[in-house]
Amino acid sequence: MRYALGVEYDGGDFRGWQRLSPHGQPGVPTVQASLEEALSSVAAAPVEVVCAGRTDAGVHAECQVVHFDSDAPRTPRSWSLGTTTRLPPSICVRWCLPVADDFNARFSARARRYRYRILNRAVRPALGRQQLSWERLPLDADAMHRAAQALLGENDFNAFRTVHCQAPHAVRDLQALSIVREGEQVRLEIQANAFLHHMVRNIVGSLLMVGRGEKPEDWIAELLAGRDRTLAGPTAPADGLVFLGPLYPAQWGLPEEVTLAI
Amino acid sequence: MRYALGVEYDGGDFRGWQRLSPHGQPGVPTVQASLEEALSSVAAAPVEVVCAGRTDAGVHAECQVVHFDSDAPRTPRSWSLGTTTRLPPSICVRWCLPVADDFNARFSARARRYRYRILNRAVRPALGRQQLSWERLPLDADAMHRAAQALLGENDFNAFRTVHCQAPHAVRDLQALSIVREGEQVRLEIQANAFLHHMVRNIVGSLLMVGRGEKPEDWIAELLAGRDRTLAGPTAPADGLVFLGPLYPAQWGLPEEVTLAI
Repeated sequence: MRYALGVEYDGGDFRGWQRLSPHGQPGVPTVQASLEEALSSVAAAPVEVVCAGRTDAGVHAECQVVHFDSDAPRTPRSWSLGTTTRLPPSICVRWCLPVADDFNARFSARARRYRYRILNRAVRPALGRQQLSWERLPLDADAMHRAAQALLGENDFNAFRTVHCQAPHAVRDLQALSIVREGEQVRLEIQANAFLHHMVRNIVGSLLMVGRGEKPEDWIAELLAGRDRTLAGPTAPADGLVFLGPLYPAQWGLPEEVTLAI
Repeated sequence: MRYALGVEYDGGDFRGWQRLSPHGQPGVPTVQASLEEALSSVAAAPVEVVCAGRTDAGVHAECQVVHFDSDAPRTPRSWSLGTTTRLPPSICVRWCLPVADDFNARFSARARRYRYRILNRAVRPALGRQQLSWERLPLDADAMHRAAQALLGENDFNAFRTVHCQAPHAVRDLQALSIVREGEQVRLEIQANAFLHHMVRNIVGSLLMVGRGEKPEDWIAELLAGRDRTLAGPTAPADGLVFLGPLYPAQWGLPEEVTLAI
Protein backbone atom coordinates (compact mmCIF):
# COMPACT_ATOMS: atom_id res chain seq x y z
CA MET A 1 0.00 0.00 0.00
CA ARG A 2 1.35 3.44 -0.95
CA TYR A 3 0.70 6.57 1.14
CA ALA A 4 1.35 10.28 0.66
CA LEU A 5 2.16 12.49 3.67
CA GLY A 6 2.15 16.28 4.09
CA VAL A 7 5.07 17.14 6.39
CA GLU A 8 5.75 20.48 8.13
CA TYR A 9 9.12 21.25 9.72
CA ASP A 10 11.27 23.92 11.28
CA GLY A 11 14.59 23.39 9.50
CA GLY A 12 16.60 25.24 12.14
CA ASP A 13 17.10 22.07 14.16
CA PHE A 14 18.25 19.89 11.25
CA ARG A 15 21.18 19.23 8.91
CA GLY A 16 18.72 19.48 6.03
CA TRP A 17 16.40 16.86 4.55
CA GLN A 18 18.55 14.01 3.36
CA ARG A 19 19.40 11.00 5.52
CA LEU A 20 23.16 10.82 5.94
CA SER A 21 25.27 8.04 4.55
CA PRO A 22 26.98 5.89 7.23
CA HIS A 23 29.99 8.19 6.75
CA GLY A 24 27.99 11.38 7.42
CA GLN A 25 28.59 13.57 10.46
CA PRO A 26 26.84 12.24 13.56
CA GLY A 27 25.06 14.47 16.08
CA VAL A 28 22.60 16.79 14.34
CA PRO A 29 19.80 14.71 12.78
CA THR A 30 18.19 15.13 9.35
CA VAL A 31 14.46 15.49 8.68
CA GLN A 32 14.38 12.31 6.56
CA ALA A 33 16.10 10.21 9.25
CA SER A 34 13.74 11.51 11.97
CA LEU A 35 10.66 10.89 9.82
CA GLU A 36 11.72 7.37 8.72
CA GLU A 37 12.47 6.43 12.32
CA ALA A 38 9.01 7.58 13.49
CA LEU A 39 7.19 5.91 10.56
CA SER A 40 9.13 2.68 11.10
CA SER A 41 8.09 2.72 14.74
CA VAL A 42 4.40 3.11 13.78
CA ALA A 43 4.73 0.40 11.09
CA ALA A 44 6.82 -1.87 13.33
CA ALA A 45 8.95 -2.45 10.22
CA PRO A 46 11.52 -0.41 8.28
CA VAL A 47 9.98 2.42 6.20
CA GLU A 48 11.79 4.55 3.62
CA VAL A 49 10.40 7.78 2.15
CA VAL A 50 10.84 9.69 -1.13
CA CYS A 51 10.28 13.46 -0.97
CA ALA A 52 9.11 16.10 -3.45
CA GLY A 53 12.01 18.45 -2.85
CA ARG A 54 15.10 18.02 -0.67
CA THR A 55 15.78 21.07 1.51
CA ASP A 56 19.16 22.30 2.80
CA ALA A 57 20.20 22.77 6.43
CA GLY A 58 18.13 25.52 8.06
CA VAL A 59 15.44 25.61 5.33
CA HIS A 60 11.85 25.14 6.56
CA ALA A 61 8.84 23.40 4.97
CA GLU A 62 5.18 24.29 5.23
CA CYS A 63 4.10 21.24 3.24
CA GLN A 64 6.84 18.89 2.10
CA VAL A 65 5.22 15.84 0.44
CA VAL A 66 6.63 12.31 0.69
CA HIS A 67 5.44 8.86 -0.35
CA PHE A 68 6.18 5.52 1.27
CA ASP A 69 5.03 1.90 1.00
CA SER A 70 3.83 -0.20 3.90
CA ASP A 71 1.73 -3.32 4.43
CA ALA A 72 1.11 -2.44 8.09
CA PRO A 73 -2.67 -2.24 8.71
CA ARG A 74 -2.88 1.40 9.88
CA THR A 75 -5.48 4.06 9.11
CA PRO A 76 -4.33 7.37 7.57
CA ARG A 77 -5.22 8.96 10.93
CA SER A 78 -2.85 6.62 12.81
CA TRP A 79 -0.09 7.29 10.31
CA SER A 80 -0.40 11.08 10.78
CA LEU A 81 -1.14 11.31 14.52
CA GLY A 82 0.93 8.29 15.62
CA THR A 83 3.94 9.40 13.61
CA THR A 84 3.68 13.00 14.87
CA THR A 85 3.70 11.72 18.46
CA ARG A 86 7.03 10.02 17.75
CA LEU A 87 8.61 13.06 16.05
CA PRO A 88 10.58 15.91 17.69
CA PRO A 89 8.61 19.20 18.22
CA SER A 90 10.12 20.70 15.06
CA ILE A 91 8.41 18.16 12.70
CA CYS A 92 4.79 17.10 12.28
CA VAL A 93 2.73 15.10 9.77
CA ARG A 94 -0.18 17.33 8.72
CA TRP A 95 -2.06 14.72 6.72
CA CYS A 96 -1.83 11.20 5.27
CA LEU A 97 -3.71 9.78 2.29
CA PRO A 98 -3.57 6.40 0.50
CA VAL A 99 -2.44 6.93 -3.13
CA ALA A 100 -2.20 4.92 -6.33
CA ASP A 101 0.89 2.72 -6.64
CA ASP A 102 2.28 4.79 -9.50
CA PHE A 103 2.24 8.06 -7.54
CA ASN A 104 5.75 9.32 -6.85
CA ALA A 105 6.24 12.34 -4.56
CA ARG A 106 9.23 13.47 -6.64
CA PHE A 107 8.40 12.53 -10.21
CA SER A 108 4.65 13.21 -10.14
CA ALA A 109 5.19 16.82 -9.00
CA ARG A 110 4.66 19.40 -11.77
CA ALA A 111 5.87 22.42 -9.77
CA ARG A 112 7.43 23.52 -6.48
CA ARG A 113 6.81 26.75 -4.56
CA TYR A 114 9.12 28.60 -2.16
CA ARG A 115 8.82 31.75 -0.05
CA TYR A 116 11.71 33.95 1.14
CA ARG A 117 11.16 36.63 3.82
CA ILE A 118 13.59 39.46 4.58
CA LEU A 119 13.23 41.81 7.55
CA ASN A 120 14.36 45.16 6.15
CA ARG A 121 15.26 47.57 8.96
CA ALA A 122 18.30 48.93 10.84
CA VAL A 123 17.99 46.46 13.73
CA ARG A 124 18.19 42.65 13.49
CA PRO A 125 15.03 40.59 14.21
CA ALA A 126 14.33 39.06 17.65
CA LEU A 127 10.72 37.81 17.52
CA GLY A 128 10.18 35.36 14.64
CA ARG A 129 13.90 35.45 13.75
CA GLN A 130 13.84 31.68 13.07
CA GLN A 131 12.00 32.38 9.80
CA LEU A 132 13.50 35.68 8.71
CA SER A 133 16.58 36.81 6.92
CA TRP A 134 17.76 40.40 7.64
CA GLU A 135 18.89 43.32 5.48
CA ARG A 136 19.80 46.58 7.22
CA LEU A 137 20.04 48.77 4.11
CA PRO A 138 16.77 50.02 2.55
CA LEU A 139 15.52 47.74 -0.24
CA ASP A 140 13.56 48.89 -3.30
CA ALA A 141 11.13 45.95 -3.50
CA ASP A 142 9.51 47.27 -6.69
CA ALA A 143 12.88 47.38 -8.47
CA MET A 144 13.59 43.82 -7.28
CA HIS A 145 10.23 42.68 -8.62
CA ARG A 146 10.77 44.30 -12.03
CA ALA A 147 14.31 42.92 -12.34
CA ALA A 148 13.12 39.41 -11.39
CA GLN A 149 10.61 39.21 -14.24
CA ALA A 150 13.55 38.61 -16.64
CA LEU A 151 13.90 35.14 -15.11
CA LEU A 152 10.41 33.95 -16.07
CA GLY A 153 10.00 31.11 -18.55
CA GLU A 154 12.16 28.18 -19.61
CA ASN A 155 15.77 29.26 -19.10
CA ASP A 156 19.21 27.88 -18.35
CA PHE A 157 19.77 28.87 -14.69
CA ASN A 158 23.46 27.92 -14.54
CA ALA A 159 24.28 31.39 -13.13
CA PHE A 160 22.15 30.65 -10.07
CA ARG A 161 23.19 27.12 -9.04
CA THR A 162 25.93 26.09 -6.65
CA VAL A 163 29.06 24.34 -7.93
CA HIS A 164 27.92 21.33 -5.87
CA CYS A 165 24.70 21.00 -7.87
CA GLN A 166 24.49 17.50 -9.34
CA ALA A 167 21.68 18.12 -11.87
CA PRO A 168 22.68 17.03 -15.41
CA HIS A 169 21.50 20.32 -16.91
CA ALA A 170 20.33 23.71 -15.61
CA VAL A 171 17.21 24.34 -17.72
CA ARG A 172 14.15 24.99 -15.52
CA ASP A 173 10.74 26.50 -16.20
CA LEU A 174 10.24 29.46 -13.86
CA GLN A 175 6.46 29.95 -13.74
CA ALA A 176 5.94 32.80 -11.26
CA LEU A 177 8.12 35.16 -9.23
CA SER A 178 6.84 38.08 -7.19
CA ILE A 179 8.45 40.40 -4.66
CA VAL A 180 6.31 42.65 -2.46
CA ARG A 181 6.92 44.83 0.57
CA GLU A 182 4.67 44.31 3.62
CA GLY A 183 5.66 46.91 6.22
CA GLU A 184 9.19 46.16 7.42
CA GLN A 185 9.27 42.88 5.47
CA VAL A 186 10.11 42.12 1.85
CA ARG A 187 8.58 38.83 0.72
CA LEU A 188 9.51 36.79 -2.37
CA GLU A 189 7.37 33.96 -3.74
CA ILE A 190 8.66 31.76 -6.54
CA GLN A 191 7.30 28.80 -8.49
CA ALA A 192 9.12 26.59 -11.01
CA ASN A 193 8.75 23.06 -12.38
CA ALA A 194 11.86 22.22 -10.35
CA PHE A 195 14.80 24.00 -8.71
CA LEU A 196 18.57 23.62 -8.84
CA HIS A 197 20.68 23.39 -5.68
CA HIS A 198 20.72 26.83 -3.95
CA MET A 199 18.76 28.33 -6.87
CA VAL A 200 16.28 30.33 -4.75
CA ARG A 201 18.93 31.63 -2.35
CA ASN A 202 21.24 32.59 -5.24
CA ILE A 203 18.43 34.45 -7.01
CA VAL A 204 17.62 36.26 -3.75
CA GLY A 205 21.30 37.13 -3.23
CA SER A 206 21.49 38.80 -6.65
CA LEU A 207 18.10 40.54 -6.28
CA LEU A 208 19.32 42.01 -2.96
CA MET A 209 22.12 43.77 -4.88
CA VAL A 210 19.48 45.33 -7.14
CA GLY A 211 17.29 46.18 -4.14
CA ARG A 212 20.15 48.03 -2.43
CA GLY A 213 20.87 49.93 -5.66
CA GLU A 214 24.32 48.35 -6.14
CA LYS A 215 23.32 46.91 -9.52
CA PRO A 216 20.86 48.12 -12.19
CA GLU A 217 17.60 46.27 -12.78
CA ASP A 218 18.74 44.80 -16.11
CA TRP A 219 21.73 43.15 -14.40
CA ILE A 220 19.55 40.14 -13.55
CA ALA A 221 18.80 39.51 -17.26
CA GLU A 222 22.54 39.85 -17.99
CA LEU A 223 23.46 37.33 -15.28
CA LEU A 224 20.93 34.83 -16.62
CA ALA A 225 22.24 35.21 -20.19
CA GLY A 226 25.89 34.93 -19.04
CA ARG A 227 25.29 31.54 -17.33
CA ASP A 228 28.34 32.24 -15.11
CA ARG A 229 27.88 31.49 -11.38
CA THR A 230 30.93 33.55 -10.39
CA LEU A 231 29.27 36.80 -11.51
CA ALA A 232 26.05 36.47 -9.46
CA GLY A 233 25.48 37.77 -5.90
CA PRO A 234 26.27 35.74 -2.77
CA THR A 235 23.95 32.94 -1.58
CA ALA A 236 21.31 34.42 0.76
CA PRO A 237 21.01 32.84 4.26
CA ALA A 238 18.80 29.76 4.79
CA ASP A 239 16.66 31.18 7.64
CA GLY A 240 14.32 33.20 5.40
CA LEU A 241 13.50 30.26 3.11
CA VAL A 242 10.38 28.09 3.38
CA PHE A 243 9.47 25.29 0.96
CA LEU A 244 5.72 25.95 0.62
CA GLY A 245 5.22 22.64 -1.16
CA PRO A 246 4.93 20.83 -4.50
CA LEU A 247 1.95 20.87 -6.88
CA TYR A 248 0.48 17.69 -8.42
CA PRO A 249 -2.14 17.08 -11.13
CA ALA A 250 -5.67 16.74 -9.72
CA GLN A 251 -5.84 13.02 -10.74
CA TRP A 252 -3.92 11.99 -7.60
CA GLY A 253 -6.66 13.27 -5.30
CA LEU A 254 -4.30 15.07 -2.90
CA PRO A 255 -5.28 18.06 -0.70
CA GLU A 256 -5.98 21.37 -2.46
CA GLU A 257 -2.81 23.05 -1.13
CA VAL A 258 -0.64 20.64 -3.19
CA THR A 259 -2.90 20.32 -6.24
CA LEU A 260 -2.49 22.32 -9.46
CA ALA A 261 -5.31 24.76 -10.19
CA ILE A 262 -7.05 23.66 -13.41
CA MET B 1 18.37 62.93 30.09
CA ARG B 2 15.36 60.63 29.68
CA TYR B 3 14.99 58.18 26.78
CA ALA B 4 12.21 55.93 25.51
CA LEU B 5 13.04 52.59 23.84
CA GLY B 6 10.95 50.25 21.69
CA VAL B 7 11.97 46.69 22.61
CA GLU B 8 11.13 43.47 20.73
CA TYR B 9 11.65 40.04 22.31
CA ASP B 10 10.99 36.34 21.99
CA GLY B 11 9.77 35.45 25.48
CA GLY B 12 10.46 31.73 25.07
CA ASP B 13 14.03 32.16 26.34
CA PHE B 14 13.12 34.16 29.47
CA ARG B 15 11.58 33.89 32.93
CA GLY B 16 9.36 36.81 31.99
CA TRP B 17 10.05 40.55 32.13
CA GLN B 18 10.82 41.42 35.71
CA ARG B 19 14.34 41.43 37.13
CA LEU B 20 14.54 38.91 39.95
CA SER B 21 15.16 39.86 43.54
CA PRO B 22 18.49 38.59 44.97
CA HIS B 23 16.47 35.64 46.30
CA GLY B 24 15.04 34.75 42.85
CA GLN B 25 15.93 31.54 41.03
CA PRO B 26 19.25 31.78 39.21
CA GLY B 27 19.84 30.34 35.73
CA VAL B 28 17.18 31.50 33.29
CA PRO B 29 17.49 35.30 32.79
CA THR B 30 14.71 37.88 32.61
CA VAL B 31 14.21 40.40 29.81
CA GLN B 32 14.62 43.36 32.19
CA ALA B 33 17.91 42.04 33.61
CA SER B 34 19.32 41.40 30.10
CA LEU B 35 18.26 44.84 28.88
CA GLU B 36 19.60 46.71 31.93
CA GLU B 37 22.92 44.89 31.65
CA ALA B 38 23.29 45.84 27.97
CA LEU B 39 22.23 49.48 28.54
CA SER B 40 24.59 49.78 31.52
CA SER B 41 27.42 48.52 29.34
CA VAL B 42 26.67 51.15 26.66
CA ALA B 43 26.33 53.88 29.34
CA ALA B 44 29.37 52.64 31.28
CA ALA B 45 27.21 53.25 34.38
CA PRO B 46 24.26 51.46 36.01
CA VAL B 47 20.95 51.94 34.12
CA GLU B 48 17.49 50.93 35.37
CA VAL B 49 14.39 50.76 33.17
CA VAL B 50 10.63 51.13 33.74
CA CYS B 51 8.37 49.28 31.28
CA ALA B 52 4.85 49.84 29.93
CA GLY B 53 3.63 46.33 30.72
CA ARG B 54 5.38 43.45 32.49
CA THR B 55 5.06 40.17 30.59
CA ASP B 56 5.05 36.65 32.06
CA ALA B 57 7.46 33.82 31.26
CA GLY B 58 7.09 32.74 27.62
CA VAL B 59 5.11 35.83 26.52
CA HIS B 60 6.57 37.76 23.56
CA ALA B 61 6.64 41.48 22.75
CA GLU B 62 6.50 43.18 19.38
CA CYS B 63 7.00 46.64 20.90
CA GLN B 64 7.47 46.82 24.66
CA VAL B 65 8.24 50.43 25.64
CA VAL B 66 10.61 51.38 28.47
CA HIS B 67 12.09 54.62 29.75
CA PHE B 68 15.42 55.20 31.46
CA ASP B 69 17.61 58.11 32.56
CA SER B 70 21.26 58.54 31.66
CA ASP B 71 23.78 61.36 31.48
CA ALA B 72 26.06 59.36 29.19
CA PRO B 73 26.67 61.34 25.96
CA ARG B 74 25.22 58.81 23.45
CA THR B 75 23.11 59.38 20.36
CA PRO B 76 19.72 57.59 20.08
CA ARG B 77 21.34 55.50 17.32
CA SER B 78 24.13 54.32 19.66
CA TRP B 79 21.60 53.48 22.34
CA SER B 80 19.56 51.31 19.96
CA LEU B 81 22.32 49.68 17.86
CA GLY B 82 24.97 49.51 20.62
CA THR B 83 22.53 47.99 23.09
CA THR B 84 21.21 45.48 20.53
CA THR B 85 24.78 44.31 19.88
CA ARG B 86 25.12 43.51 23.60
CA LEU B 87 21.77 41.66 23.84
CA PRO B 88 21.07 37.95 23.24
CA PRO B 89 19.50 37.08 19.82
CA SER B 90 16.03 36.92 21.37
CA ILE B 91 15.94 40.68 22.26
CA CYS B 92 16.54 43.82 20.21
CA VAL B 93 16.01 47.56 20.63
CA ARG B 94 13.96 48.71 17.63
CA TRP B 95 14.23 52.44 18.29
CA CYS B 96 15.34 55.03 20.85
CA LEU B 97 14.09 58.61 21.27
CA PRO B 98 14.87 61.34 23.81
CA VAL B 99 11.69 62.22 25.75
CA ALA B 100 10.50 64.87 28.21
CA ASP B 101 11.49 64.29 31.84
CA ASP B 102 7.87 63.72 32.90
CA PHE B 103 7.30 60.89 30.40
CA ASN B 104 6.80 57.57 32.19
CA ALA B 105 6.58 54.37 30.12
CA ARG B 106 4.10 52.89 32.61
CA PHE B 107 2.00 55.82 33.81
CA SER B 108 1.86 57.81 30.55
CA ALA B 109 0.39 54.82 28.64
CA ARG B 110 -3.36 55.17 27.94
CA ALA B 111 -3.84 51.65 26.52
CA ARG B 112 -2.11 48.31 25.92
CA ARG B 113 -2.67 45.89 23.03
CA TYR B 114 -2.16 42.12 22.93
CA ARG B 115 -2.56 39.42 20.26
CA TYR B 116 -3.21 35.71 20.88
CA ARG B 117 -2.86 33.14 18.06
CA ILE B 118 -4.24 29.61 18.15
CA LEU B 119 -3.45 26.95 15.53
CA ASN B 120 -6.73 25.07 15.17
CA ARG B 121 -6.18 21.67 13.55
CA ALA B 122 -5.79 18.00 14.47
CA VAL B 123 -1.97 18.08 14.43
CA ARG B 124 0.28 20.20 16.67
CA PRO B 125 2.34 23.00 15.06
CA ALA B 126 5.99 22.52 14.04
CA LEU B 127 6.92 25.61 11.97
CA GLY B 128 6.32 28.83 13.92
CA ARG B 129 5.34 26.87 17.04
CA GLN B 130 7.22 29.38 19.24
CA GLN B 131 4.39 31.88 18.68
CA LEU B 132 1.35 29.61 18.50
CA SER B 133 -0.94 27.96 20.95
CA TRP B 134 -2.76 24.82 19.70
CA GLU B 135 -6.34 23.58 19.85
CA ARG B 136 -7.15 20.24 18.20
CA LEU B 137 -10.96 20.49 18.41
CA PRO B 138 -12.74 22.69 15.84
CA LEU B 139 -13.34 26.24 17.12
CA ASP B 140 -16.29 28.44 16.17
CA ALA B 141 -14.42 31.76 15.92
CA ASP B 142 -17.62 33.72 15.18
CA ALA B 143 -19.26 32.43 18.38
CA MET B 144 -16.11 33.35 20.34
CA HIS B 145 -16.19 36.86 18.86
CA ARG B 146 -19.87 37.39 19.69
CA ALA B 147 -19.44 36.06 23.24
CA ALA B 148 -16.39 38.29 23.82
CA GLN B 149 -18.29 41.50 23.06
CA ALA B 150 -19.92 41.21 26.53
CA LEU B 151 -16.54 42.14 28.04
CA LEU B 152 -16.32 45.56 26.35
CA GLY B 153 -16.39 48.72 28.46
CA GLU B 154 -15.44 49.53 32.03
CA ASN B 155 -15.98 46.34 34.04
CA ASP B 156 -14.73 44.51 37.12
CA PHE B 157 -12.60 41.69 35.66
CA ASN B 158 -12.12 39.77 38.91
CA ALA B 159 -13.31 36.55 37.21
CA PHE B 160 -10.35 36.74 34.81
CA ARG B 161 -7.37 37.51 37.05
CA THR B 162 -5.04 35.10 38.80
CA VAL B 163 -5.12 34.75 42.58
CA HIS B 164 -1.55 36.08 42.53
CA CYS B 165 -2.67 39.38 40.96
CA GLN B 166 -1.53 42.27 43.18
CA ALA B 167 -3.68 45.04 41.66
CA PRO B 168 -5.75 46.85 44.33
CA HIS B 169 -8.94 46.55 42.28
CA ALA B 170 -10.04 44.71 39.13
CA VAL B 171 -11.84 47.46 37.18
CA ARG B 172 -10.40 47.90 33.70
CA ASP B 173 -11.67 49.60 30.54
CA LEU B 174 -11.74 47.03 27.73
CA GLN B 175 -11.72 49.10 24.54
CA ALA B 176 -11.62 46.53 21.73
CA LEU B 177 -11.72 42.75 21.39
CA SER B 178 -11.95 40.85 18.11
CA ILE B 179 -11.60 37.20 17.20
CA VAL B 180 -11.22 36.15 13.56
CA ARG B 181 -10.34 32.95 11.75
CA GLU B 182 -7.53 33.07 9.16
CA GLY B 183 -7.27 29.63 7.57
CA GLU B 184 -6.07 27.16 10.22
CA GLN B 185 -5.48 29.99 12.73
CA VAL B 186 -7.82 31.76 15.13
CA ARG B 187 -6.48 35.18 16.10
CA LEU B 188 -7.60 37.35 19.03
CA GLU B 189 -6.71 41.04 19.38
CA ILE B 190 -7.51 42.91 22.56
CA GLN B 191 -7.02 46.47 23.81
CA ALA B 192 -7.66 47.88 27.31
CA ASN B 193 -6.41 50.81 29.37
CA ALA B 194 -4.51 48.22 31.44
CA PHE B 195 -4.59 44.49 32.14
CA LEU B 196 -4.67 42.35 35.28
CA HIS B 197 -2.23 39.48 35.83
CA HIS B 198 -3.12 36.61 33.41
CA MET B 199 -6.20 38.55 32.22
CA VAL B 200 -5.71 37.90 28.48
CA ARG B 201 -4.85 34.23 28.94
CA ASN B 202 -7.82 33.71 31.28
CA ILE B 203 -10.21 35.40 28.83
CA VAL B 204 -8.81 33.18 26.03
CA GLY B 205 -9.20 30.07 28.21
CA SER B 206 -12.90 30.80 28.76
CA LEU B 207 -13.51 31.78 25.12
CA LEU B 208 -11.99 28.44 24.05
CA MET B 209 -14.78 26.65 25.99
CA VAL B 210 -17.34 28.68 24.00
CA GLY B 211 -15.44 28.02 20.74
CA ARG B 212 -15.51 24.25 21.33
CA GLY B 213 -19.24 24.40 22.11
CA GLU B 214 -18.81 23.34 25.75
CA LYS B 215 -20.40 26.57 27.02
CA PRO B 216 -23.07 28.85 25.48
CA GLU B 217 -22.15 32.29 24.18
CA ASP B 218 -23.81 34.13 27.09
CA TRP B 219 -21.65 32.25 29.60
CA ILE B 220 -18.91 34.90 29.17
CA ALA B 221 -21.32 37.67 30.32
CA GLU B 222 -22.31 35.46 33.28
CA LEU B 223 -18.69 34.88 34.28
CA LEU B 224 -17.96 38.61 34.15
CA ALA B 225 -21.02 39.42 36.30
CA GLY B 226 -20.20 36.64 38.79
CA ARG B 227 -16.67 38.01 39.48
CA ASP B 228 -15.62 34.51 40.61
CA ARG B 229 -12.25 33.28 39.25
CA THR B 230 -13.00 29.66 40.15
CA LEU B 231 -15.83 29.48 37.60
CA ALA B 232 -13.86 30.64 34.53
CA GLY B 233 -11.92 28.43 32.09
CA PRO B 234 -8.26 27.42 32.58
CA THR B 235 -5.43 29.87 31.80
CA ALA B 236 -4.42 29.48 28.13
CA PRO B 237 -0.70 28.74 27.42
CA ALA B 238 1.80 31.62 27.13
CA ASP B 239 3.21 30.71 23.67
CA GLY B 240 0.36 32.24 21.68
CA LEU B 241 0.54 35.60 23.44
CA VAL B 242 2.32 38.69 22.08
CA PHE B 243 2.32 42.12 23.75
CA LEU B 244 1.88 44.33 20.67
CA GLY B 245 2.66 47.44 22.69
CA PRO B 246 1.28 50.39 24.67
CA LEU B 247 -0.38 53.53 23.25
CA TYR B 248 0.56 57.06 24.36
CA PRO B 249 -0.95 60.50 23.68
CA ALA B 250 0.56 62.22 20.64
CA GLN B 251 2.14 64.94 22.85
CA TRP B 252 5.12 62.65 23.67
CA GLY B 253 6.22 62.47 20.03
CA LEU B 254 6.77 58.71 20.01
CA PRO B 255 6.60 56.52 16.86
CA GLU B 256 3.18 56.01 15.24
CA GLU B 257 2.91 52.35 16.31
CA VAL B 258 2.76 53.38 20.01
CA THR B 259 0.78 56.61 19.59
CA LEU B 260 -3.00 56.90 20.05
CA ALA B 261 -4.96 57.72 16.90
CA ILE B 262 -6.61 61.11 17.36
